[in-house]
Amino acid sequence: MAKKAETKPPKGTRDFLPVDLRRREHVVGVIKRIYEAHGFQPLETPTFERLETLLGKYGEEGDQLVFKVLHRGQPLVDGIRQAGQHLLEPGAVVVGRSGETAPAAEKLLADMGLRYDLTVPLARVVAEYQGKLPPVWKRYQIQPVWRADTPGKGRFREFYQCDVDVVGSNSPLVEADVISAVAECLRELGFKDFEIRLNHRGLLRAFVEHSGIPLALESAAIVAVDKLDKVGREGVTAELGAKGISAESAEKLLGLVLGERPIAELKQALAGHEGGQKALAELETVLGLVRSTPAQEHLVFNATLARGLGYYTGCIFEIAVKDLAGSLGGGGRYDGLIGMFSGKDVPACGFSIGLERILVVMEERGMFPGQLGAVDVVVAADKDVDGAAGQLQVAAQLRQAGLRVDLNVRSASPGALRKAADESGVPCVVFVGADLGVVKAWHKQVPGPESSVSISDLAQWIRSR
Amino acid sequence: MAKKAETKPPKGTRDFLPVDLRRREHVVGVIKRIYEAHGFQPLETPTFERLETLLGKYGEEGDQLVFKVLHRGQPLVDGIRQAGQHLLEPGAVVVGRSGETAPAAEKLLADMGLRYDLTVPLARVVAEYQGKLPPVWKRYQIQPVWRADTPGKGRFREFYQCDVDVVGSNSPLVEADVISAVAECLRELGFKDFEIRLNHRGLLRAFVEHSGIPLALESAAIVAVDKLDKVGREGVTAELGAKGISAESAEKLLGLVLGERPIAELKQALAGHEGGQKALAELETVLGLVRSTPAQEHLVFNATLARGLGYYTGCIFEIAVKDLAGSLGGGGRYDGLIGMFSGKDVPACGFSIGLERILVVMEERGMFPGQLGAVDVVVAADKDVDGAAGQLQVAAQLRQAGLRVDLNVRSASPGALRKAADESGVPCVVFVGADLGVVKAWHKQVPGPESSVSISDLAQWIRSR
Repeated sequence: MAKKAETKPPKGTRDFLPVDLRRREHVVGVIKRIYEAHGFQPLETPTFERLETLLGKYGEEGDQLVFKVLHRGQPLVDGIRQAGQHLLEPGAVVVGRSGETAPAAEKLLADMGLRYDLTVPLARVVAEYQGKLPPVWKRYQIQPVWRADTPGKGRFREFYQCDVDVVGSNSPLVEADVISAVAECLRELGFKDFEIRLNHRGLLRAFVEHSGIPLALESAAIVAVDKLDKVGREGVTAELGAKGISAESAEKLLGLVLGERPIAELKQALAGHEGGQKALAELETVLGLVRSTPAQEHLVFNATLARGLGYYTGCIFEIAVKDLAGSLGGGGRYDGLIGMFSGKDVPACGFSIGLERILVVMEERGMFPGQLGAVDVVVAADKDVDGAAGQLQVAAQLRQAGLRVDLNVRSASPGALRKAADESGVPCVVFVGADLGVVKAWHKQVPGPESSVSISDLAQWIRSR
Repeated sequence: MAKKAETKPPKGTRDFLPVDLRRREHVVGVIKRIYEAHGFQPLETPTFERLETLLGKYGEEGDQLVFKVLHRGQPLVDGIRQAGQHLLEPGAVVVGRSGETAPAAEKLLADMGLRYDLTVPLARVVAEYQGKLPPVWKRYQIQPVWRADTPGKGRFREFYQCDVDVVGSNSPLVEADVISAVAECLRELGFKDFEIRLNHRGLLRAFVEHSGIPLALESAAIVAVDKLDKVGREGVTAELGAKGISAESAEKLLGLVLGERPIAELKQALAGHEGGQKALAELETVLGLVRSTPAQEHLVFNATLARGLGYYTGCIFEIAVKDLAGSLGGGGRYDGLIGMFSGKDVPACGFSIGLERILVVMEERGMFPGQLGAVDVVVAADKDVDGAAGQLQVAAQLRQAGLRVDLNVRSASPGALRKAADESGVPCVVFVGADLGVVKAWHKQVPGPESSVSISDLAQWIRSR
């Protein structure tokens, strides 16, 4: 016999069978509804983008993680010739871990790459449709992205992002709006014990400057502080030292970050630091505005929040859930990024919800509603009756009444059909006989095997259980 | 200045901005709802599959149209070396139109390919999860597929398919069920003048045999007949002749196909032909069963329908709309395909709706509901009032009442805001002043600039316009 074909989904990807998919659809449906209630408009972009659009936006490591789509036709022949010559030369350059080819060789062979995130496509769309989009554009995008990462627990090569961004406004109302939208999503999904942590990139910079750390080391300092949760105060101190930051400065920085001082006190501590005062004022404004939204009880100022990404320019936020390491999502203001293709300065602020993590937590905590989208009733033919036409008629009537109706096509005893229905979460089986005016109906909520029900009452009979 | 980056979507793909996307979502939403009402369960599979899963399933031309995903790391280095050596050898083989590389070279460089259709992934899933799926599995799948085709009007490299299939049953109820589901989808979308044409692969074979055409030429004959719509009777006659079919046989075949004879007459014409009688009996059964469904008025037997794909084994169907060349979808019974990975015989029958064509026709015919999913109201601050907090409070109340609420963040006059709202399809603007008990509200259905409305009546006031 021939070797059985491999039928698992490719490494790092998943098949979503109905039960799993309905849970995903439940979560996506809630997020979509809440984003829409906040006036955000949907966007979808192609699965692949030109490599020139993607590369150089995510750092060198990110570039390596972009899945690339092979050239076709003559360009592929030419690419292989060039790449091959390059590699066949004595002393050809091969760089990177585990022997990756030089990125140059990849570019000879591929012209497009799979979407790596939803922000670069947004920037491309904003540049392309400048005249067609409203001056302030509120868009959401819920689509998969792909990364050629090493898969692991909860880490996939194909996964969804749920992004909400406001493009074109500097108003702090925007921060309040996206925070309110994301908090509402979580509440609607059933989360209660979550915090949205708020900090400001400008405050972190002020801390750095106030601690006497040269601005050239700002990023290194912030990246180190971002690891407080993981490596603790000592770990961060060690990393700061390793980056060439003096013990005194490190101590001062950690004192500011970890001091848990309210904004009013920080204003005094940073007296005279213009950037710091501005950041604190913006934090106060956003905190004040959010008090007028249902997100109020969830938003907390947290001076330790740093977020790794270098592109934030103002407020930054992150969702934290009790007893859970890592976050369910984050975002902030990033005024320099969206204009990368248009060459214009476009202010922007967004929040991204991590769908895969939310699903894991909801699964662990049993937060899904029961029987999402299952079938309401199976219509079968009575034993020994050629009831196929009758099945179809009864099914059509029940569908007309809004029920989700499956047809039995197997020959099985009534008992076996009831059992199979019950096991797959279908609460009701109807048996159609020669007389289409009355059927036998079983419902798991009704004791005994079957009841006789008039066809005109049937939909109501099923609904009222 | 640097050359402006190309920001169009890649060739053959599209960005879906809100207005377009809402129309797509409307159509997909209807199809999903109707499939669910018929008891079908959703499935999603990964964007890419192993090349070994995809290649060899769609013919040689299909294999060329699969987008391939470049190897990474050491396998890529090795692949380039081998492919390069192959192509750098004197007299290296390069095959195909416009200089495509030998498929062997592509396989050296790529390990995965983008999903080309939804049927091969279904077959893989059926093989992989044999024990976990119900014995008769009704699944639908609405996802994009990718083909490296030459794009043209209505032809894309990334497009959606909406497939519904029943796996594991030979019952003709299945044919009636998928036909009923698809007819309901079209009716719900507003199509009235459509036909679902029904034929049977076994009847076509009987026609071929009865015409004295050798079975070795069956496929060629059916492919020729399939072009009747495009090239007419003479064109088909010419093609049949070119394939080596005698003029007499060709005449006889076309007489049978084009005779527009009812099934009863065909039974006589094919008297004694076992396969033909079986096919006609199955057609009668399906036509009879569909009479018990709302698809009744749409289903017509049509002996000219051939459908190109070789894998059908029983009934075949196609959606035809008046005044429209080509079909909106098609399907049939294909009992030999789904078992390709499991090595088992798995009966199957399905129907695929062509989303892109449906959208084009609905657009041309103005069949979309107005204002799909737009915003209900924009909440602005009264001029000269620092009303941001008030805006958020009023917005939260209106969202609580189920309205979709946008916030104004621009400084613009009330007139400009009304105009902008009206132009983007938003019927109402609310202006929040210092007193949060009463707001000024403009609604396009209410004459005059603005009305004073109590905050407690506001949601109702907006809804009732």
